Amino acid sequence: MRQMAAAVFLGLASLTAAADAAPRPARIPDAALVQATRLREQALASDLAYRITESLTTEVGARLAGSEADARAVAWAEARFRALGYDRVWKEPVTFPVWERRSERARVLGANAQALAVTALGGSPGGTVEGEVVRFADLAALEAAPAGSLTGKIAFVDFAMERARDGHGYSTGSRIRGRGPTTAATKGAIGYLMRSAGTDSHRMPHTGITRFDAGVTPIPSAALAAPDAMQLARLVALGPQRVHVTLDCGWNGEATSYNVIGEIRGSRRPDEIVLIGGHLDSWDLGTGAIDDAAGIGITMAAGAMIGRLPRAPARTIRVVAFANEERGLYGGKAYAAAHAVDIAKHIVGAESDFGAGRVYTYRSSAPAAAQAADARILEALAPLGIQAGPAGGEGAGPDIGPIAAQGMAWAQLAQDGTDYFDLHHTADDTFDKIDPQAIAQNAAAYTVFAYLVASMEGDFGSTPKPPPATAAP
Amino acid sequence: MRQMAAAVFLGLASLTAAADAAPRPARIPDAALVQATRLREQALASDLAYRITESLTTEVGARLAGSEADARAVAWAEARFRALGYDRVWKEPVTFPVWERRSERARVLGANAQALAVTALGGSPGGTVEGEVVRFADLAALEAAPAGSLTGKIAFVDFAMERARDGHGYSTGSRIRGRGPTTAATKGAIGYLMRSAGTDSHRMPHTGITRFDAGVTPIPSAALAAPDAMQLARLVALGPQRVHVTLDCGWNGEATSYNVIGEIRGSRRPDEIVLIGGHLDSWDLGTGAIDDAAGIGITMAAGAMIGRLPRAPARTIRVVAFANEERGLYGGKAYAAAHAVDIAKHIVGAESDFGAGRVYTYRSSAPAAAQAADARILEALAPLGIQAGPAGGEGAGPDIGPIAAQGMAWAQLAQDGTDYFDLHHTADDTFDKIDPQAIAQNAAAYTVFAYLVASMEGDFGSTPKPPPATAAP
Repeated sequence: MRQMAAAVFLGLASLTAAADAAPRPARIPDAALVQATRLREQALASDLAYRITESLTTEVGARLAGSEADARAVAWAEARFRALGYDRVWKEPVTFPVWERRSERARVLGANAQALAVTALGGSPGGTVEGEVVRFADLAALEAAPAGSLTGKIAFVDFAMERARDGHGYSTGSRIRGRGPTTAATKGAIGYLMRSAGTDSHRMPHTGITRFDAGVTPIPSAALAAPDAMQLARLVALGPQRVHVTLDCGWNGEATSYNVIGEIRGSRRPDEIVLIGGHLDSWDLGTGAIDDAAGIGITMAAGAMIGRLPRAPARTIRVVAFANEERGLYGGKAYAAAHAVDIAKHIVGAESDFGAGRVYTYRSSAPAAAQAADARILEALAPLGIQAGPAGGEGAGPDIGPIAAQGMAWAQLAQDGTDYFDLHHTADDTFDKIDPQAIAQNAAAYTVFAYLVASMEGDFGSTPKPPPATAAP
Repeated sequence: MRQMAAAVFLGLASLTAAADAAPRPARIPDAALVQATRLREQALASDLAYRITESLTTEVGARLAGSEADARAVAWAEARFRALGYDRVWKEPVTFPVWERRSERARVLGANAQALAVTALGGSPGGTVEGEVVRFADLAALEAAPAGSLTGKIAFVDFAMERARDGHGYSTGSRIRGRGPTTAATKGAIGYLMRSAGTDSHRMPHTGITRFDAGVTPIPSAALAAPDAMQLARLVALGPQRVHVTLDCGWNGEATSYNVIGEIRGSRRPDEIVLIGGHLDSWDLGTGAIDDAAGIGITMAAGAMIGRLPRAPARTIRVVAFANEERGLYGGKAYAAAHAVDIAKHIVGAESDFGAGRVYTYRSSAPAAAQAADARILEALAPLGIQAGPAGGEGAGPDIGPIAAQGMAWAQLAQDGTDYFDLHHTADDTFDKIDPQAIAQNAAAYTVFAYLVASMEGDFGSTPKPPPATAAP
């Protein structure tokens, strides 16, 4: 355990001063670059991120937010931060409605009777439905179905998600999951099936959250594994098919879990925070290795490696293990609500929640005055095979999204997600899928990034935003 | 439908005469080679095998022997043979005990509580067991455990099967499945778990038959998916682990299914038979695409392509869709019992039951007098990328094994099984895994082989064997 540095409360005052004048250019001291290079090589050679990921996925396993295992994960995170020598460890409550999956099954009936591999979408009600399947090639086709045309039927959106390094196909896939059930219900459907939002070809349906619009009666909604969607498409092409779906799942009260937070305190400006993290919860089907034990392992290891230095960097490294990302960013929203007053103290936030594939680009929301410093960060990352990412757009991850929306600067260490949606939200998301070298590269990237921003003079432009203007009537 | 050729009963007589003298060398006429080359190219360009495989796996799906779906598969096979223009189609009854799977689950209990993906081994009794897990690295380690040392415990054999083109790793894997439960039970174990006999890394446990020795009380026995076996091994390394296993499965009476047989009748020696086929049944988890709808598709297509010729070859092509291979070669044994009197009429048998990977070697049990003809078959296969297989050993497939053991000559068109045990006996054995080009190459190989043997002068040495001598007291 490192000696806790005495808190020096200069940060906010200097930021406030800077906001009044033209911002001083941010600057990374040469000594910090030398140290970052050393840290990078140490982190690359270390299996710490891999072992933390192994520990969470093995000892806790699946940890659906609000479950008994989720509580064990919280205790695991606190204990692990402490064992890794973090200076301060605490937790902040996050309360949310609980959704549970108990069992699920589906069968084609009649002359081609056979089982289909399905999983309930998170947020689906339980229930048993039986009806003729109406297949749609995509969400637009479902949206175009005439009102009432699905009365008594089961809608089936059979769209195959595109594989891409940046995972952009998921925006379509997750929209089919999020909007499909409501759309089907409004047209009279009694149930909803979709080809999983995934890129694999295994009998592994992909779960994920869905929501029903107010006023719509929720209908049992499930994802078919890709082979089963292809099978059902072939069967429907042969003639009308009736399917029986039984989902035992649903909302069940409220629970309180926790954002678990560990800090490596800064040596000179400890109230200025470099925020990194991932989410602690997982879906219930797999053990949440790539989603998101890896993010926990990467960022906990990065903080710990910085914490082992004889002298901490100027600023504090804060690692947050967010609660209940999967059912609606509850942890990220709670963190934003609790820390909105400190946005200017959050120098930058970066989140690891896209698996354990190698980081291939780096970019940030740094303003002009910080871009020279940002370029030095990229130089220090380049030996890891990391290039400049595209400019513009949104790059904050899901959990830091709410606080970034309130003005916190963000950086994005974009991971190669080519294979991510093979496993994402499936039973197959398990520790054996993690590549030790790739996760070490991630930890090295976060270590370099966090250390350099924590050592930087000047800031990345975090500024509290005024609340969004109300639209004129 | 081709005109049925009149039966010419010369075959048996000439074979009997040949057995009395030195055998006449077998010979393949040049015209047959020309025709075989044409057939080869037609078959390579055809999607018939692929479409037959699609039809069986889609319309029937999983078809566990003795199930309602198995009866549909029998009807499918009869109808499909007829639709393909086979000259004679019939079925022969096969009776066997029925084993059923209803549900199965397993959980680690206690501080690391979590679900494990398991599937009951075929032949396992149902039941609920709960006990401490004792891990063994392989079957030998389990065999070496002292008597009584597993009393009240659950044995876990954690051996990772080797990946190989010829699938030789399965001999170890299937032995762990076949012998492990009895071995564990004799040492007092109340349950048996094994790492699946497979080469994948998905949450897809591999089922397959096991048997208990007489006098041993059967214990619930299941396979863990590879990731779950790795997980349980990690957990056991952390400390003692208790596991709860509930299997609802078991033997349930008897059923009669059928070997379904289609013939393309020979034009000159129709009572002489070239036997090809695969098995019609499948395990219940997947839709039995690589095991063994592909074998049905390949051999049905081969016969059908020969059947479309303006003139049939001299001998009959008999395609057998064997019943209940999976629970103990019941169809193969019934065929052997029903046709033992006709062994000399079965010129040669070849079976496709190793997936849909490309055929890479050819070999046969042809005696010296047939080796020149056999070499010409290999020449005709060579453009498909098929080389000579290793000499010696056993090469008859499982279903033709019983009749080959009684003296029928065999040929082996060995398939590339590198990926076969990724899917074998899992839920993931589905149609989407079939490569259309690879299955067409298989169909081309069987078409060439069957056509040439059916056109050959002379035989492959099929001779009824005397029953095995009783050991001296």
